[in-house]
Amino acid sequence: MNVTIRGRTEHFRTVAFDARTNSVQLIEQRLLPHEFKIVGTKNYRETAWAITDMVVRGAGAIGATAAYGLAQSALTFRGSDLTRFSAHIKTVYQTLADARPTAVDPVNAMNDVCREMARGETVAEQQSLALAAAEEFANEDVRHCEEIGRHGAKLIRNGMRILTHCNAGWLAFVDVGTATAPMYAAQAQGKKFHVFCDETRPRSQGATLTAWELAQQKVSHQIIADNAAGHLMQRGEIDLVIVGSDRTLGRTGEVTNKIGTYTKAVLAARHKIPFYVAIPLSTIDWNLKRGFDIPIEERHADEVLGAWGVNSRQQREYVRVANPGSGARNPGFDVTPPELITGIITPLGIFKPKELWKKRSLLKQEK
Amino acid sequence: MNVTIRGRTEHFRTVAFDARTNSVQLIEQRLLPHEFKIVGTKNYRETAWAITDMVVRGAGAIGATAAYGLAQSALTFRGSDLTRFSAHIKTVYQTLADARPTAVDPVNAMNDVCREMARGETVAEQQSLALAAAEEFANEDVRHCEEIGRHGAKLIRNGMRILTHCNAGWLAFVDVGTATAPMYAAQAQGKKFHVFCDETRPRSQGATLTAWELAQQKVSHQIIADNAAGHLMQRGEIDLVIVGSDRTLGRTGEVTNKIGTYTKAVLAARHKIPFYVAIPLSTIDWNLKRGFDIPIEERHADEVLGAWGVNSRQQREYVRVANPGSGARNPGFDVTPPELITGIITPLGIFKPKELWKKRSLLKQEK
Repeated sequence: MNVTIRGRTEHFRTVAFDARTNSVQLIEQRLLPHEFKIVGTKNYRETAWAITDMVVRGAGAIGATAAYGLAQSALTFRGSDLTRFSAHIKTVYQTLADARPTAVDPVNAMNDVCREMARGETVAEQQSLALAAAEEFANEDVRHCEEIGRHGAKLIRNGMRILTHCNAGWLAFVDVGTATAPMYAAQAQGKKFHVFCDETRPRSQGATLTAWELAQQKVSHQIIADNAAGHLMQRGEIDLVIVGSDRTLGRTGEVTNKIGTYTKAVLAARHKIPFYVAIPLSTIDWNLKRGFDIPIEERHADEVLGAWGVNSRQQREYVRVANPGSGARNPGFDVTPPELITGIITPLGIFKPKELWKKRSLLKQEK
Repeated sequence: MNVTIRGRTEHFRTVAFDARTNSVQLIEQRLLPHEFKIVGTKNYRETAWAITDMVVRGAGAIGATAAYGLAQSALTFRGSDLTRFSAHIKTVYQTLADARPTAVDPVNAMNDVCREMARGETVAEQQSLALAAAEEFANEDVRHCEEIGRHGAKLIRNGMRILTHCNAGWLAFVDVGTATAPMYAAQAQGKKFHVFCDETRPRSQGATLTAWELAQQKVSHQIIADNAAGHLMQRGEIDLVIVGSDRTLGRTGEVTNKIGTYTKAVLAARHKIPFYVAIPLSTIDWNLKRGFDIPIEERHADEVLGAWGVNSRQQREYVRVANPGSGARNPGFDVTPPELITGIITPLGIFKPKELWKKRSLLKQEK
């Protein structure tokens, strides 16, 4: 999407490939929203490190990064020995897969690339197929998000006030995003609306990443404390909720997303405010039978006990807010049941959560 | 309650009077939880300033501070001219009332003191009546909180996990507190339980003041992000909610309290978890006819856009967390409707919110 630097507006993808320097170009997300910087990884090890160290994060974005990383390393191979080339690719694949061991997107993306490469009969052919496949993975990610936007934009009417939680924006994908896609599409259609970004403690992705995105894209928005949405709903100041999802159960329609999502769904249901979840098809889990079995990551207490920000000297700093003697519970995600969800916005249309299973032959991405 | 400093445990009130030095002794709350310090105000101007600058905050605590401030200034008057003495008191009264112009407690407390003083026939008599009345106001505040504790402790059973929001603890009163009173009473009865403190963004009173109180009192507790309570309720990890209130409507049973309280009440109702509000009788508003008319203070955006804490060099510092170009909405309070409230814990017993009006002849504090 667009980023304005020193008065000049330019289009960027979260992840791109520069063939001239054979480098993966990433928005350095750890510096946002305080600094915008593009970093290029020189080789696949640096690319893997960028995934591990969260220079890049988000399902679609790390998938594309791994795909490009594989192509990047394929292109640096010298020689024509296919056996040696395959062994090299295998090592690289493992390194990139290990960069975020619980994430499924890098593995899926690299499997796409490997399947395409296998069509080549020489090292040179496989090298060029690898890059083409990585580009295609990234382009498909963008197209899917655009389709989510096209379907979701129909939900947004002029003057609406939309609540979103955490960041399911273009920074989490190659471009456009999921929860934000309907907003960007509606904006392109000339609709006027206002977005409330839940701060999203403890990691504050709403106040940092989503607010930054919306500001760059010139979408009217305000940040609110996670505590404030209930009050705003009660006073009739929220018309629509759109969030993303890390994992949606195809069998039950249950949605796993950032901690606090469930609370917003409960509030929206009480106030009869439509609650939508925007997802790429890759995040649908067709196997798990109930949401209660989804393991909820318990994260480090320090996230709850303090905050990262920029001090008066413009330095990034962690301050401890909480009482020094006290500990914290820090569940990272929660599960929202289908009865609280008005619809799931996918690249193939909007479905009721319970419809997913019936439509599985359409929605399952067979590769 | 108890505070442990360098291994030594001592009992403190939030507000007390030292007759020897004629000073109001206050816990310097702006330094908590990172530093514990008692400050003494030398004269009524310093006492008024301590209220304005929030060295002391909380309904009961600022009431007692103003009462002591009035007595403090009465005691410094030299001479026996009652007319001049009354003029002096009038000036002091106005200064202390203006210290927090929207608060009702300092005015109510000082009216108590003035009524008692009027019984004296000489300056000397009025001086001694003033101090006695201020002491009585403070002692009554403590007795009322203890009564809340006695009634509320019956709700707490062994092994319970209790959620509380913001700080309605002893730091907001002369001692014991309201929402915390049942916990301290249950602890004294030997009951074991665990408290989850909502962080309570944006000002984090749960993570700072409530957690500090509970730690000092050796009550088992953990801080959670405001986003996490819904998930914990869903997983059956919360058995009871107790919060305080800034204003409760006697006619409707609606409860105004820190932003986020309404959200917790909605979640508790969904999960059939008892939701109690602990209040002193002085916070019941017998006039207002509907909660929608309660003015909700919109506070400064900086509270939402960043956080105060202690950095690695142990200095207090504000860090900006949010995207620099973004603004915020920051409502300070919300209103919880009576149907979500299991009971209101008062010094005179536990009532259904709708019962308050029927019991008004009992509950109205006629002075």
